Amino acid sequence: MKKLSESKAYGGIQGVYSHWSEATNCEMTFGLFMPEEAKYNSVPVLWYLSGLTCTHDNAMTKSGAQNWAAEQGIALVFPDTSPRGESIADNDDFDLGQGAGFYVNATQNPWAKHFNMWDYITISLPDLLFNNFSLDKDRQSITGHSMGGHGALTIALTLPNSYRSVSAFAPISNPTESDWGKKQFSTYLGEDKKQWRAHDSSILMREKGFPGPVLIDQGSSDQFWDLLNPEALSDAITYQKQAATFRIHKGYDHSYFFISSFMEEHISFHAEALYR
Amino acid sequence: MKKLSESKAYGGIQGVYSHWSEATNCEMTFGLFMPEEAKYNSVPVLWYLSGLTCTHDNAMTKSGAQNWAAEQGIALVFPDTSPRGESIADNDDFDLGQGAGFYVNATQNPWAKHFNMWDYITISLPDLLFNNFSLDKDRQSITGHSMGGHGALTIALTLPNSYRSVSAFAPISNPTESDWGKKQFSTYLGEDKKQWRAHDSSILMREKGFPGPVLIDQGSSDQFWDLLNPEALSDAITYQKQAATFRIHKGYDHSYFFISSFMEEHISFHAEALYR
Repeated sequence: MKKLSESKAYGGIQGVYSHWSEATNCEMTFGLFMPEEAKYNSVPVLWYLSGLTCTHDNAMTKSGAQNWAAEQGIALVFPDTSPRGESIADNDDFDLGQGAGFYVNATQNPWAKHFNMWDYITISLPDLLFNNFSLDKDRQSITGHSMGGHGALTIALTLPNSYRSVSAFAPISNPTESDWGKKQFSTYLGEDKKQWRAHDSSILMREKGFPGPVLIDQGSSDQFWDLLNPEALSDAITYQKQAATFRIHKGYDHSYFFISSFMEEHISFHAEALYR
Repeated sequence: MKKLSESKAYGGIQGVYSHWSEATNCEMTFGLFMPEEAKYNSVPVLWYLSGLTCTHDNAMTKSGAQNWAAEQGIALVFPDTSPRGESIADNDDFDLGQGAGFYVNATQNPWAKHFNMWDYITISLPDLLFNNFSLDKDRQSITGHSMGGHGALTIALTLPNSYRSVSAFAPISNPTESDWGKKQFSTYLGEDKKQWRAHDSSILMREKGFPGPVLIDQGSSDQFWDLLNPEALSDAITYQKQAATFRIHKGYDHSYFFISSFMEEHISFHAEALYR
């Protein structure tokens, strides 16, 4: 692991590090906020998965999350959204290839060698973090925005014992039925649509639900509403009788101004689960 | 108007009064909580519409609402759920007739003479209240439980200029498709189902929405879930992109223990709209 930078922030440390990942077969960069409490005790962790085009940097600099995480004594992890590098497969479209890993393990060439963001988020990066930082593996929660909301929900729903709570800002909710999903799944996973279902949070929510609490925030003026398909997720939550809060905020769009407006409440929501 | 009782409560007055109503052609009883502030200024009003079998008394004694209304300086109105009296039409079923007015104006005999709870809640009782108490007609909000949640939602959606915000606990959400609805609408309104649509909050929400904020709470262990049909309402809210919070609370049932557990948050929600 290499330290790229460390800055004091809200009494704690905002670091940026890189490491070799077996999952993606390349060097990966991530941000990590450690609150002051981590000097004395291992602290709980909130994962923040970012959306299309983002790196580890966007939420780390624009979400305002560290303020509230510092108050609550929670660490924040900001992973990248895909493998990156000149030798790594890519595509000219902003929503495919680098910056658009979609939190799956690709099975199709030329993507299969590097585009394994599912394993990166659930195996490689946790292994590194829990071996190198004062973090409590038994107290993890997960959130994310847009493609990252999709990642947070599908990962939590699939690995419910690993996360105490899950939330999402404007998640891609039903990718098997959206142009944000069909294109990427057919590219990364192939044309067998049965393989896609494990990566659709509305399907997973409807089929099994989540044992902990769920919080979803969505802006009514989101310019990508039709691609996100929040109806499918709200429907699945209600069908499942999932312990959940699903909110639509009038006039908010898809930007970080939306995320930062409600970040305090997401951190408080997770803190309640992490300190139970 | 007759004063039946007045008791000091949370620094204010919990009264019970009766009056002749032109809408229902009979004497009606209601509860009214006036916070201490009403001694000095006119105060905003939150209407609480009760569910099947309830009188004015149930929420007044079991919801715990006065505590929070006193903190916020808001008056609470607890109307009855139907006309009552020996000479008034009734039915042996608990969900039809007295105690089950369903917040409509009946057009069918023998119900049409007295069962006009829509006009009672929106005309008769407001006229009386604003002429006799220090209440601010320009600051009203409305909530309710079960059949009363249905009433609150349908009334607010139909008269959006009269209410700044609306909330509901476990509302009957889609009565045109439920045995809590079809039976009562066919009895009170007749078999022409077009007449029923004006009294279905999921239909109204889908068609027009509400200009103010909306809060819906539903227990996941509600024994009447299938009769309430919360799916229809969550679906309509999302379709409409309604500014709304729709929450499912794990393990809560249909009782006043559910209502009182979340009453503080409903009063705070309305206070924010009423003091804007």
